[in-house]
Amino acid sequence: MNSVLQPQDLADAALRTRAVAAARGEQPFDILIQGGTLVDVVTGELRPADIGLVGSLIASVHEPGTRSDAADIIDAGGAFVSPGLIDTHMHVESSMVTPATYANAVLPRGVTTVVWDPHEFGNVNGVAGVRWAADAIRDLPLRTVLLAPSSVPSAPGLELAGADFDAGIIADILSWPEIGGIAEMMNMRGVIDGEARISAIVQAGLAAGKPVNGHARSLAGTDLQAFVTAGVSSDHELVSGDDLMAKLRAGLSIELRGSHDHLLPEFVNTLNALGHLPQTVTLCTDDVFPDDLARAGGLDDVVRRLVRYGLPAEWALRAATLNGAVRLGRHDLGLVAPGRRADIVVFEDLSEFRTRTVIVDGKVIAKSGDMIEPLTDIDVAPLYGTMKIAPLAEADFRICAAGTKVRVATIDRPRFTQWAEAVAEVEGGFVVPPEGTTVIAVAHRHGRADSRPRVGLLSGWGAWRGAFATTVSHDSHNLTVFGGNAADMAVAANAVIVAGGGMAVASGGKVDVLLPLPICGLVSEQPLAEIAAGFAELRDAVGRIVDWQPPYLVFKACFGATLACNAGPHQTDRGIADVAIGKLMESPILEVL
Amino acid sequence: MNSVLQPQDLADAALRTRAVAAARGEQPFDILIQGGTLVDVVTGELRPADIGLVGSLIASVHEPGTRSDAADIIDAGGAFVSPGLIDTHMHVESSMVTPATYANAVLPRGVTTVVWDPHEFGNVNGVAGVRWAADAIRDLPLRTVLLAPSSVPSAPGLELAGADFDAGIIADILSWPEIGGIAEMMNMRGVIDGEARISAIVQAGLAAGKPVNGHARSLAGTDLQAFVTAGVSSDHELVSGDDLMAKLRAGLSIELRGSHDHLLPEFVNTLNALGHLPQTVTLCTDDVFPDDLARAGGLDDVVRRLVRYGLPAEWALRAATLNGAVRLGRHDLGLVAPGRRADIVVFEDLSEFRTRTVIVDGKVIAKSGDMIEPLTDIDVAPLYGTMKIAPLAEADFRICAAGTKVRVATIDRPRFTQWAEAVAEVEGGFVVPPEGTTVIAVAHRHGRADSRPRVGLLSGWGAWRGAFATTVSHDSHNLTVFGGNAADMAVAANAVIVAGGGMAVASGGKVDVLLPLPICGLVSEQPLAEIAAGFAELRDAVGRIVDWQPPYLVFKACFGATLACNAGPHQTDRGIADVAIGKLMESPILEVL
Repeated sequence: MNSVLQPQDLADAALRTRAVAAARGEQPFDILIQGGTLVDVVTGELRPADIGLVGSLIASVHEPGTRSDAADIIDAGGAFVSPGLIDTHMHVESSMVTPATYANAVLPRGVTTVVWDPHEFGNVNGVAGVRWAADAIRDLPLRTVLLAPSSVPSAPGLELAGADFDAGIIADILSWPEIGGIAEMMNMRGVIDGEARISAIVQAGLAAGKPVNGHARSLAGTDLQAFVTAGVSSDHELVSGDDLMAKLRAGLSIELRGSHDHLLPEFVNTLNALGHLPQTVTLCTDDVFPDDLARAGGLDDVVRRLVRYGLPAEWALRAATLNGAVRLGRHDLGLVAPGRRADIVVFEDLSEFRTRTVIVDGKVIAKSGDMIEPLTDIDVAPLYGTMKIAPLAEADFRICAAGTKVRVATIDRPRFTQWAEAVAEVEGGFVVPPEGTTVIAVAHRHGRADSRPRVGLLSGWGAWRGAFATTVSHDSHNLTVFGGNAADMAVAANAVIVAGGGMAVASGGKVDVLLPLPICGLVSEQPLAEIAAGFAELRDAVGRIVDWQPPYLVFKACFGATLACNAGPHQTDRGIADVAIGKLMESPILEVL
Repeated sequence: MNSVLQPQDLADAALRTRAVAAARGEQPFDILIQGGTLVDVVTGELRPADIGLVGSLIASVHEPGTRSDAADIIDAGGAFVSPGLIDTHMHVESSMVTPATYANAVLPRGVTTVVWDPHEFGNVNGVAGVRWAADAIRDLPLRTVLLAPSSVPSAPGLELAGADFDAGIIADILSWPEIGGIAEMMNMRGVIDGEARISAIVQAGLAAGKPVNGHARSLAGTDLQAFVTAGVSSDHELVSGDDLMAKLRAGLSIELRGSHDHLLPEFVNTLNALGHLPQTVTLCTDDVFPDDLARAGGLDDVVRRLVRYGLPAEWALRAATLNGAVRLGRHDLGLVAPGRRADIVVFEDLSEFRTRTVIVDGKVIAKSGDMIEPLTDIDVAPLYGTMKIAPLAEADFRICAAGTKVRVATIDRPRFTQWAEAVAEVEGGFVVPPEGTTVIAVAHRHGRADSRPRVGLLSGWGAWRGAFATTVSHDSHNLTVFGGNAADMAVAANAVIVAGGGMAVASGGKVDVLLPLPICGLVSEQPLAEIAAGFAELRDAVGRIVDWQPPYLVFKACFGATLACNAGPHQTDRGIADVAIGKLMESPILEVL
């Protein structure tokens, strides 16, 4: 029965005996938190209370000043005592740092539990990547509920990831005690249409008795009912206040997501209008870029922004603590009350949520926003060496063609892609990208097939004056290169290949900026500050070779250009894919004119 | 993983496939509930919605009138559609009927799940009694979460029940899939003081990863903190609004109890003043006498009264459904939403809560308050034959004494007992009960020791003009006899012995009324109407031989007169016991004067 959903460490007779004795006043507490205002996420009260800890347990929550016997006393005067924050859906890899570095970043900010879908590690390194994640979190004080990635790859048959998780593999992963459920079912149509592979994965989750988490983007009406009825029980892909209400009514556990800030004010208005906070509302980050993580934080920043947008602070904290714990089935978490686990944050205030002290399992691990002892990772070497691809040549980024003129298909518009067409000249056996198009090339890098780039044309993606290569490219994370000319594309691509993965910008035949991400081609073990600075520098460099046009033609769109599970055409390592019609074209050439 | 806390029947691929197809409109529903107003216990809305069922699943909750394809259509026009009610703490035995009869009584009223502590069967029949309960519920449509009785006996060393459950036995019972946790820890001091036997029982629950339920009567301050810190996580013994707040603040799951009606208005006021319904508030009945069950119902009556006292109907239903389901860790229950179990009640209104239709597991089991097919029990024979005691003589109900005058101890006052003393004459070797005293005799009936009655004296219990014998006598359920004279006591006792258990009233040397309860001496397999009538008749008969003086000297007090786990002196089969000081006197004689 010992698992991340039901840990056994608090079922310790000696610990309980000692805690009971301390609660009765017969023994001192290990730690006494004095003089603070308790945020009671059950009653909604802010009330003065002192809290006595024994080992990893909260032993007593009592009238202020009635006890002073403790090995250590923490002064919470003028501050607020809250349960540790719980992030119910996130991907460490999105921050391009290791689990220990991520923990070092968010623990001092009061985030004590995260639900990590190691979807990116899984897509690159397969079961070994997920296993590494399970090993990496084992001794981290950042309590981590790991999920089994559901979509490796996200669009089977249309792309090749580093692995292929069928229901049998998922069932095996689900049997690990570290695994708390199946991660977001991204293949929504597969679930709704009852595709055999996808239905079997949902079924594996139901059979394991572990939650099957959702990704219910824009689902409504009968599709939403079918998706939930299949066995999916959460969603973080909300797009509006109405969508939030529809998902609440569907009985889904809501993971209100910080990564789409522009939506949060509307969610706040919806919940305030409802007049109470449903117990099914939890909070999550999903994806946080490294510079955002360094500057603003993780789930703490979601809480901060929700409160700034008008959500009562107690509601935001309840969503981020007790509601999250209930979703996880973790009775030990989410509440400052006797007999619960001592994951506690002392916040200076309930607007900026600056932390004074962070306690995990009864141990003070951070003070004034700094880790007392920064964490280190297990060996990352097993996740190195994922660039199974030889250097590429300029010609690899061109589209071979016969004749002198061709009709080509283009992938039109970032984000919400659609099919378009253009007529192109052919020179020296290669297509000349027509005016208004950008070249996209995706090269398989996992050693499971040929790594010759499949080259396509983007329209509506602006005029590129250089090239950008990245191995962070959802969800298969093949080497993806955008560019205005084949020479710079080759330069950028080869810089990334030599670095063992990462991102590079090239222009004028040379590398402008390189951000090495040698762990799975997604993550670096360098300190967060360095990755954050490197990422910001790289983003600026990309901004110099293309003119962004928000809201859709933005840097972030590059990472989703290959997300073949979404509707519309997407370039993958196998060609131009369209999941809705099951189409896969190796070359964009439609016709020789 | 298949257990009452995580049933696997909904993890059925064919069922899910069929439900998804129906949700999409590709297949008809099995049942369509049309035209009703849905009580949405997540959002708090009352909103029009139609609900499509497939097998035991809710397949779709959709806009009214958008679908009409179903094998069966249920008209919910003008009515309210709610999740089935969940009673989070109860004892079937208190209603003196079998599980099937109890189910026949509450299912048509909308109660679809109960959490049953078979404490009384356990105290009489031991593990076999609990095993019988587990077998009895298996095929009942009344979903029953069985608990392992924690207190068999409730006062070890001071009384002899039919069995003795130590931590080893509890751990074994906890391993059964039907068992959802440990039932109310009644020995509060044992928990708080860390008594070895009791601590080991709590520990067995923690080790099994199943909830340890509480009984935290009047606990406050450090005692409350210690009790909860030990690992106990619920309470139903609330005595006031302040107590409710203190228990909420302690993080306990609240089982707001219907059996103490006079407290409910205060609880309603407290919750209304709080301004929101904490998710930790659930509802329970605890004990319902047979005539009350027949007249007013089970948990439905708790809901009805709370609403009558001013709790918003939606709050009462949320406490009785979603909150209960969350407490049980049962994601399939407590909500009318896609993918959940189809336990649904159609209420005619939200004040009287009359039911139009009750659906369990997708099957209509009751209409207009009547079971469509009344349930029957498994064989009750194994629970017969628990009166392991020979007929008693008049002299057995007298107190032997030397000399002519003695000083005797008395048990003073019903309910909140205290020690008192009196001087008594001795005639013919027996004490003459002094003016103002009543005789109480308790005879062991479980065959584990001698069955000679231990006889004591009650003061402040009125003047008795006859005798009342009962084998319903908490918690060891030994044969307990109250009376004004030894002759009537013997008559009443022997009537009960011959009946195989039950209750009898005797006066003037003959039996006035007999209510046979041959199943464990607690329950009858006769129909509820008959037991309710018999019980009412018996209660009236007792009222004719003693003048009740409410609020404490009332009929109900007779059943708790032997409850030796409570503070103060109590008569048991071993003598006069006082748990607080660990005292046990075989005879009330203190001194021969």
